Amino acid sequence: MIEIQESHPLGLNTARILTFSDGIFAIVITLLVIDLKVPQIFGDIATELPGRLFDLWPKLLSYVLSFIIVGVYWVAHHHVFHYIERVDRICLWLNIFFLMSVAFVPFPTALLGEYSNNRLAVIIYGVNVIVTRLLLLALWIYAVYQHRLINPEMDSGTINRVTWLILMPVFIYTFAIGISFLSTRFSLALYFLVPLFFSIIPSRLNRADSL
Amino acid sequence: MIEIQESHPLGLNTARILTFSDGIFAIVITLLVIDLKVPQIFGDIATELPGRLFDLWPKLLSYVLSFIIVGVYWVAHHHVFHYIERVDRICLWLNIFFLMSVAFVPFPTALLGEYSNNRLAVIIYGVNVIVTRLLLLALWIYAVYQHRLINPEMDSGTINRVTWLILMPVFIYTFAIGISFLSTRFSLALYFLVPLFFSIIPSRLNRADSL
Amino acid sequence: MIEIQESHPLGLNTARILTFSDGIFAIVITLLVIDLKVPQIFGDIATELPGRLFDLWPKLLSYVLSFIIVGVYWVAHHHVFHYIERVDRICLWLNIFFLMSVAFVPFPTALLGEYSNNRLAVIIYGVNVIVTRLLLLALWIYAVYQHRLINPEMDSGTINRVTWLILMPVFIYTFAIGISFLSTRFSLALYFLVPLFFSIIPSRLNRADSL
Amino acid sequence: MIEIQESHPLGLNTARILTFSDGIFAIVITLLVIDLKVPQIFGDIATELPGRLFDLWPKLLSYVLSFIIVGVYWVAHHHVFHYIERVDRICLWLNIFFLMSVAFVPFPTALLGEYSNNRLAVIIYGVNVIVTRLLLLALWIYAVYQHRLINPEMDSGTINRVTWLILMPVFIYTFAIGISFLSTRFSLALYFLVPLFFSIIPSRLNRADSL
Repeated sequence: MIEIQESHPLGLNTARILTFSDGIFAIVITLLVIDLKVPQIFGDIATELPGRLFDLWPKLLSYVLSFIIVGVYWVAHHHVFHYIERVDRICLWLNIFFLMSVAFVPFPTALLGEYSNNRLAVIIYGVNVIVTRLLLLALWIYAVYQHRLINPEMDSGTINRVTWLILMPVFIYTFAIGISFLSTRFSLALYFLVPLFFSIIPSRLNRADSL
Repeated sequence: MIEIQESHPLGLNTARILTFSDGIFAIVITLLVIDLKVPQIFGDIATELPGRLFDLWPKLLSYVLSFIIVGVYWVAHHHVFHYIERVDRICLWLNIFFLMSVAFVPFPTALLGEYSNNRLAVIIYGVNVIVTRLLLLALWIYAVYQHRLINPEMDSGTINRVTWLILMPVFIYTFAIGISFLSTRFSLALYFLVPLFFSIIPSRLNRADSL
Repeated sequence: MIEIQESHPLGLNTARILTFSDGIFAIVITLLVIDLKVPQIFGDIATELPGRLFDLWPKLLSYVLSFIIVGVYWVAHHHVFHYIERVDRICLWLNIFFLMSVAFVPFPTALLGEYSNNRLAVIIYGVNVIVTRLLLLALWIYAVYQHRLINPEMDSGTINRVTWLILMPVFIYTFAIGISFLSTRFSLALYFLVPLFFSIIPSRLNRADSL
Repeated sequence: MIEIQESHPLGLNTARILTFSDGIFAIVITLLVIDLKVPQIFGDIATELPGRLFDLWPKLLSYVLSFIIVGVYWVAHHHVFHYIERVDRICLWLNIFFLMSVAFVPFPTALLGEYSNNRLAVIIYGVNVIVTRLLLLALWIYAVYQHRLINPEMDSGTINRVTWLILMPVFIYTFAIGISFLSTRFSLALYFLVPLFFSIIPSRLNRADSL
């Protein structure tokens, strides 16, 4: 599983990359709450606080959505590195670029929390998800091409299945972005439903994997 | 104790979940201090600073309370995973939802620090504690049901004792929330006393465990 | 050295406590930079920026001081846990209270960066250092009393030496606080000199240890 | 590769130092996004948001640049510690000072994001990179001098190659700072090109290493 790789020129191994990545995942997911700021009230606190807290619900929904989505990335990332046995310079940097996109999540989250009815905010959030997935896909395709970084005996059936599982949400999020021109609420509903049905709830679709 | 589990479809094992969770616990507990902001003084510093710093005491108390409560969660989480030997998709996501509630703690903490006399702030703080405990309970019950994820030979006495230890603070915090309609100060005193007597000070109550 | 302890009622071992503590040290030390904020300039940037940046030097010094002091805590903490072989509930919570004091460092740091000439700010900074040391001392004394958590064969000479190394900076910082009634600059100079001579520069004083 | 060192007076080993350092790298790289703040709009959101978001592009570029540069530091740090087999007090503190410079990155990043056309902001950013590299160089030279902390059989060819790889970007960044007196845009272009050609894209230059 997580095996200590033999020493190689970069002095890095899969285990250390996972530790570093896990640190970033943990920090990103915890920073999301920073956007939830306590309202400053200048009038009567007891009267105004309930309404002002209620107004935070879009930010709260945004927090929940991003927490789940980063959770899905975390599982997907481990899934991909479950099959990767070696790392090289390109793989290392594709992983860093993937993490750059993951670490960016707090920005579209805050944007969506502030302007949840705005189409542009909804689109930027979706684009961030798609870009993150495509970077993970690039990492995966680089790793499996001619069995470069994976077990030489891994069958193409498993490879294709993982590829498909990484790629599928890209199509759905693209569709959800298109929907935003009709209704941003429908887009947001789709954003929530994808992780729910593809990752969280066990089903035939994700029987063996969770990406 | 912390054993590396055999590889399984999710490519995750108990050890990695604990590392990820520990990262989140460490970050949440450290972020709490961010709410303690240095007062901006526009008059005479030497004259005004002492009073302005003294005014921070509710935030300081709020910091201490939340630090202890997150510490209690951390111990409880390890206790639960001490018995869990396998993870599956549902367990993984119940853990992520539990962490979502832990990572939320800085918000009610800041709210309580700002409006420590306000009943709603006191209630929200207590509800966050209860929800976190219930999510840990859900994780525990899912794991022990028909010995799904625990050692097949674990006796029902131990299982019931752990269940009870997770659940007991739920009752006390519910009671403390009720008390807030009489006096928010009594509620806050109870919030402080629960971790003190059930986790920190060794006694017959927590002889074998610390949840 | 760092050995995996046998399972015990708390389900925690020394290794996991060190991982959790290291996470907190790493986050505290990195959060210190947050107080260094980019100045907002409303006039001519090229003219005003140099002066405005120069005005940040007390915050920069404060950043450097706290980075070093947290670094010293980190080394001291590892030193103490180098000798501790078992943990129990009291030890666990003394460690959490020690970490609470470490995680508090960003507040007195920001206070000192903002009001570096103010005696109260200087005193609060020093008191935080002293309290942190005393909590580490409490942890150490609890652990060594009747060889409770340390190797039964550890000689009293080593124990006393470690005790003294933890305690000595307490005396110097108490003295430095007293000096602040004459000159806050002298106090600050002492704050800087203690880690320099007792931890960083190798000498007869710290030949074998770095606390 | 990453081996657990024998116990020594400091109670620290290379593995623990790497874990602590990795934590700091992960936090620094994730904190960079905090500078990207959602614009507050007081007029019509749909009309003003696109323009206001577009105005964030210098901050976005600054985020990407710093993410890559901290990524390069991370790889370089592992490379250096790949060869270091023992640690002593001086090595420990040189590492902490190196980390202090890495943890400082968010400040020049925010400065550059705010004042991207200002020469002083460009220079400060470059100086931070140079200082960080020089501290890593000091650590490396201290470690290799008379094979103090490295394998006694390590040949001087490898040592010189690593020294050169750490040092080379110092020259280029010094040159880039000089260029800023002609054009800050050219400087920034060079800041981007160095990691691109020396670390990310595999070539004859970095065939065996990535510093």
